Amino acid sequence: MSKVKVAAFTVSLDGFGAGPRQNLQHPLGVRGEELHAWFVDTDVFKKMNEQSEGAHGIDNDFAAQSRDNVGAWILGRNMFGPVRGPWKDESWKGWWGENPPYHTPVFVLTHHARAPLTMDGGTTFYFVTDGIESALQKAKAAAKGKDVRIGGGVATIRQYLTAGQIDEIHLAMSPIFLGEGEHLFAGLNLHALGFTSIKTVASEKATHVLIKKG
Amino acid sequence: MSKVKVAAFTVSLDGFGAGPRQNLQHPLGVRGEELHAWFVDTDVFKKMNEQSEGAHGIDNDFAAQSRDNVGAWILGRNMFGPVRGPWKDESWKGWWGENPPYHTPVFVLTHHARAPLTMDGGTTFYFVTDGIESALQKAKAAAKGKDVRIGGGVATIRQYLTAGQIDEIHLAMSPIFLGEGEHLFAGLNLHALGFTSIKTVASEKATHVLIKKG
Repeated sequence: MSKVKVAAFTVSLDGFGAGPRQNLQHPLGVRGEELHAWFVDTDVFKKMNEQSEGAHGIDNDFAAQSRDNVGAWILGRNMFGPVRGPWKDESWKGWWGENPPYHTPVFVLTHHARAPLTMDGGTTFYFVTDGIESALQKAKAAAKGKDVRIGGGVATIRQYLTAGQIDEIHLAMSPIFLGEGEHLFAGLNLHALGFTSIKTVASEKATHVLIKKG
Repeated sequence: MSKVKVAAFTVSLDGFGAGPRQNLQHPLGVRGEELHAWFVDTDVFKKMNEQSEGAHGIDNDFAAQSRDNVGAWILGRNMFGPVRGPWKDESWKGWWGENPPYHTPVFVLTHHARAPLTMDGGTTFYFVTDGIESALQKAKAAAKGKDVRIGGGVATIRQYLTAGQIDEIHLAMSPIFLGEGEHLFAGLNLHALGFTSIKTVASEKATHVLIKKG
C-alpha cells in the first residue's frame, strides 16, 4: 500500500518545526539549523551533499529510512525558496543547486503559476496552484505506487494533517528550545485526528518518534 | 547552593502537562494518567504507595533523583484538590490520604485563606494567599538550605518560569499525544528565558530531559 508520510521532520522540544524570519541566510528560519544537528552529520546527509563519509548509527538509520520508497514529494512554497508573491522571473531554482536531493517529481504548493522546472538527477519541480488535494492527486499519480512524502514546511504538514491525508509521521525531536517560530502542533489535536505514537528511539542528538494513524 | 526546581514533571509529545476537565475522577485531567505510565511502575512510586517492589532502571533513577534534597514544595491549588472558590469546610485534605508523599512543608497557592493542615509523615500544608513570590520566600525559609520543588500544576510552573524563579527542570516526555489540556510551553519562550537542554536520556516509557538556566 502506498502511503502519504512525513519523515525525518525535526521539531524542537517546544514543538517548533522552523525558526522565525526565514530568509536567504536562514532557509530554516533563525536558529533553524540547530534543529538539524542530528541530521547534518549522518552519512546519508553527507552523501546527499557529495561530501566524505558521515556518521552511522541510529540517526543515520532514520535518515536512510526517510528516503526509502519515496515516489514523489510535496513541498510548501517557502520550503522551495524565500521568494514571496508572484515570481518575478524564473531565476530561483530552489535552495539546493543544480542537483536537488529529491530525484523524483516534486509538487510545490503556490498561488502563482510557473512552468515545470527540470533539474539534474531526476528532480522536476511542478508548481501546483489549485490546492493541496490536487497536489496530492498529482503526487500519487507521479509516485507510481510508491509513497508520497510531505517534505514540509510546518504550514504544509499542518494542512495535510487537518485534511486527514497523512498516514505516518517520523519526527525527530531535537533537544533545544526555539521559543519562537512555526509550531507544528499548536491548535491541532493529533489524538483526535487518530494518531498514536508507536515507537520512540533516542540517539545522543535526537529522539525519534514514529507516529501512525490507526 | 539551594535551587528552585521542577522535577519529574511529565508532558505529552505535544507539550501538555495535564489533560482537560480535572475532577475527582481525573485528578490529572482526562487521560492525564496515561502521561505517568513511566512513573507508576517505578520502585520509587510503589514504595511511596506502600506497594511491593517496583521497577528499577532509568525511570526509577529519575524518580529517585526528583526526590533528592527537597526541603519544601510549592503546589498550585488545583494540584492540591478539585475544590474551586472558597473552602466550604476543611474536609478536603489533598488527593493523597493521611500520609501524603511530601514529608516536608508544602505551600499551596490559593486565593482563599485556610489554617495550616498537618498530616502524617512530616507533611504540613500551608495555604498562601499573597502570591507566588511570598510562597517562594516562605518555602525557601522552610527548606533550610535544601531545594524548593515546584510540584505543579502547569499554571503554577508557568508563573514561576515567567517570573524567572526556576533554576532547573527535569521533564519526562511521555510518548503520547493528549491533543488538549494544559500546555506547559505555549506562549513561553524558554530559550529567551535562558534555559538550555543539557541532557536527554530515553527509557522505553519516557524521554527524560534535563534543562538548566544559564
